[in-house]
Amino acid sequence: MLIEEGSLVLYFYNSDKKWLIKVEKEKKLHTHLGIVDVGASIGLEYGSSIYTNKDKRIFLLPPNIYDFVMKSQRTTQIVYPKDYGYIAARTGLKNGSQVLEIGTGSAALSTFLASIVMPSGHVHTFDINEDFMSIAKKNLEKSGMDAYVTQHKYDPESISQLHNIDLVIIDLGDPWNYLEIVHPVMKSGGSIACICPTMNQLEMLATHFFHGGFVDSDCIETFIRKIEAREGKTRPSMRMIGHTTYLGFARKVLK
Amino acid sequence: MLIEEGSLVLYFYNSDKKWLIKVEKEKKLHTHLGIVDVGASIGLEYGSSIYTNKDKRIFLLPPNIYDFVMKSQRTTQIVYPKDYGYIAARTGLKNGSQVLEIGTGSAALSTFLASIVMPSGHVHTFDINEDFMSIAKKNLEKSGMDAYVTQHKYDPESISQLHNIDLVIIDLGDPWNYLEIVHPVMKSGGSIACICPTMNQLEMLATHFFHGGFVDSDCIETFIRKIEAREGKTRPSMRMIGHTTYLGFARKVLK
Amino acid sequence: MLIEEGSLVLYFYNSDKKWLIKVEKEKKLHTHLGIVDVGASIGLEYGSSIYTNKDKRIFLLPPNIYDFVMKSQRTTQIVYPKDYGYIAARTGLKNGSQVLEIGTGSAALSTFLASIVMPSGHVHTFDINEDFMSIAKKNLEKSGMDAYVTQHKYDPESISQLHNIDLVIIDLGDPWNYLEIVHPVMKSGGSIACICPTMNQLEMLATHFFHGGFVDSDCIETFIRKIEAREGKTRPSMRMIGHTTYLGFARKVLK
Amino acid sequence: MLIEEGSLVLYFYNSDKKWLIKVEKEKKLHTHLGIVDVGASIGLEYGSSIYTNKDKRIFLLPPNIYDFVMKSQRTTQIVYPKDYGYIAARTGLKNGSQVLEIGTGSAALSTFLASIVMPSGHVHTFDINEDFMSIAKKNLEKSGMDAYVTQHKYDPESISQLHNIDLVIIDLGDPWNYLEIVHPVMKSGGSIACICPTMNQLEMLATHFFHGGFVDSDCIETFIRKIEAREGKTRPSMRMIGHTTYLGFARKVLK
Repeated sequence: MLIEEGSLVLYFYNSDKKWLIKVEKEKKLHTHLGIVDVGASIGLEYGSSIYTNKDKRIFLLPPNIYDFVMKSQRTTQIVYPKDYGYIAARTGLKNGSQVLEIGTGSAALSTFLASIVMPSGHVHTFDINEDFMSIAKKNLEKSGMDAYVTQHKYDPESISQLHNIDLVIIDLGDPWNYLEIVHPVMKSGGSIACICPTMNQLEMLATHFFHGGFVDSDCIETFIRKIEAREGKTRPSMRMIGHTTYLGFARKVLK
Repeated sequence: MLIEEGSLVLYFYNSDKKWLIKVEKEKKLHTHLGIVDVGASIGLEYGSSIYTNKDKRIFLLPPNIYDFVMKSQRTTQIVYPKDYGYIAARTGLKNGSQVLEIGTGSAALSTFLASIVMPSGHVHTFDINEDFMSIAKKNLEKSGMDAYVTQHKYDPESISQLHNIDLVIIDLGDPWNYLEIVHPVMKSGGSIACICPTMNQLEMLATHFFHGGFVDSDCIETFIRKIEAREGKTRPSMRMIGHTTYLGFARKVLK
Repeated sequence: MLIEEGSLVLYFYNSDKKWLIKVEKEKKLHTHLGIVDVGASIGLEYGSSIYTNKDKRIFLLPPNIYDFVMKSQRTTQIVYPKDYGYIAARTGLKNGSQVLEIGTGSAALSTFLASIVMPSGHVHTFDINEDFMSIAKKNLEKSGMDAYVTQHKYDPESISQLHNIDLVIIDLGDPWNYLEIVHPVMKSGGSIACICPTMNQLEMLATHFFHGGFVDSDCIETFIRKIEAREGKTRPSMRMIGHTTYLGFARKVLK
Repeated sequence: MLIEEGSLVLYFYNSDKKWLIKVEKEKKLHTHLGIVDVGASIGLEYGSSIYTNKDKRIFLLPPNIYDFVMKSQRTTQIVYPKDYGYIAARTGLKNGSQVLEIGTGSAALSTFLASIVMPSGHVHTFDINEDFMSIAKKNLEKSGMDAYVTQHKYDPESISQLHNIDLVIIDLGDPWNYLEIVHPVMKSGGSIACICPTMNQLEMLATHFFHGGFVDSDCIETFIRKIEAREGKTRPSMRMIGHTTYLGFARKVLK
């Protein structure tokens, strides 16, 4: 596949130095590694490489959903791949699923969820902050996922018009207060996943699940550790993210 | 939705005691919690509950992909949700992706991958062990993912006939020996993910990536920790899985 | 050094199969590895080995403080080496330190602390449970640390007669309720370390430190992971302890 | 206890901002928190506090071994409290132990070990780098541990003159090459602890233990995670040290 004017390209030097850029004829990218002549990418194949004026080799990669998420414009803290990957795995999310998300943020998670459930499934996402909603809109458009995500201004009334939801995501400070709102619109056996940065939130959530009509409550945290694998001297990286969020899961049953 | 004769139902007591059963009129399930009258589920709604003869409440849940994977018949060690979720997240796997998997095992991973890429995407999976292949076939049929997964007896020749692969999974003891075989059939910028239980495998793999035409090499391990969230006495679980596997990722570039 | 009648010997097969035994002439030790003729150890050197009647090789090791702790008779949950080692390291415990411990339990921690501060330092340990105190007494005698540990029945009055304490350990459910009692008997700059199995305890403790006259508050948890290091196939162990306790540290300042 | 001219004082604002200073009459400490009038500490009690000219409160703490280690002048990577605490706990190190250390570095570990085994025990430490040795000397003098540590220029001959060693520490790139040198000078049942930053070193070490006359081989890594414990919003810290070193332990038996 050839890179064209207007293509989105990930200019990749290494995992810390990479840029997601829309290709334009005259565009130059100024970096610590030298100047990248973005326009010169036009007509090259994805997977090929060019050199900066300081002779650093830059690979031209087609961005994938991971790149869109990691390079999305941030509002507050995003949900990270180690967490959203587990959400998909634990809840049985799949192609065609209907998703309800409360707390759009910058739409990092919506982007990922949409990429899985599309085109027959859909993500309905709600937020109250209009500034966030407009950043989220841009992020969704950039990744092309806007067609599979409907953004709503938060309002319990509009939620109640949904039905047969397979997966509910709640990314708000008090998820337990939304259990009553989402329960009626969920499929029986459907999953809920809540983003709880603190242990106090997780505890509150867990104590509300059963009486709220949810079983299979599962509270966890995930970690990821980078390994520096090099011949004869392999070791884990010295730095690590110690915490992003706890996750609370459950499944709807009939009350 | 109502449970019918022939429906697959997850009889759920708690996360350690749950059974994935095909409903038949006369079937009884004998458990430490007492006898479950499986036939009595017919006509009940998913999400409702029945009681064992020892008065233990069992919820009737529709199984999802997570349940199919966790209850699949095992051959060797399966790839766990914490790992396969991250594989999807890190590689940008999405609906429509074309997947090549070498090392089908019991098809736990194939099941998950197919549930995301279906119906337009596809998983081509290869193994050499015919016993495993036949177990994998049954597992795929049970979850309904067999329509989106083609099982092949391993043979480099048949792999070479694939093209435009978005994601390659290698779950074999010597993944570095397969880089040359898979590189030509991958899309530029496509991802590879290798399952490496030992650090030695990870090191060998990492040292082969660059010369094999792969960049963005990323070696990691994931952990998951269960939290026992209970009012006023929240603490992590005492037991934890300390290790399942390392994962090695990279993306194809032109050689 | 030669093993004598009455010597304590660690009969070591591997880290899961080891026995701490007092040598007697006629004693036989019956194990899954066969029968060990304990009496036959008399006159052998520490570090030598004998064979069971099933031809398994057993090494004769002199027990150290780690062995005494791991083989002590348990009351409730003991404090583990990963935690008590960090307590010593973090609080600057050293030879000659004066220690006050509230919550003796089975004296696992007292044994370790005494082995460091002896002979000029001392551990004053308090408990309310007389059954625990009597088990603790036996454990202390076995390791020979009873000479450096004074056991007290808990009573705020007797604590108030101590002075110049370098390190306070609190291993009780509500450590924050003891801050006022221990503050006056501590040296300025002296350390306190509290064993808090739950996050709720840790939170309560941390919120009481500053007003209780303590600074340098430090709340942590430690993990230990076993590595199976074998030629060409090194990997972490599959099983791991996920949690023992949180630890809360601080240092006394003048109120 | 009163602070005098010449006293070492830890000027403590928080765990990130603290200074270990020798008190002199005219000394001023310039910090981002304002100027600390060090001389004004003279005559104050340890545990009291003074204010910077920007009105920030600084506590005056007596430094302990932890402070000396954390504030020692570094050569290469030091061994951290989470690791040296576990070394003491796992090997049964105690008052009176005789220690042999190969690889003094900046003497962080020697300082800690000496503070436990003193005054009747001793640490014999060897290095080949004279620049490191002179930095180590200053660090040992500062903490007052120089009386219990003898520094030697590395030389197998001088090691062979030691005897009855309870604990051997090897902090060098190829610890397995020193097993033969240290075995004869160790007590039977004595412990060895090796600092192995990479998995390759750990693997090499582990495969040499048994034939080198060592049993109870134990390969581990330790982690520490900080918890931000605050009322109603307790969570682990986002940043964490992912890796310092692996540790390999074993005990001497007769060959």
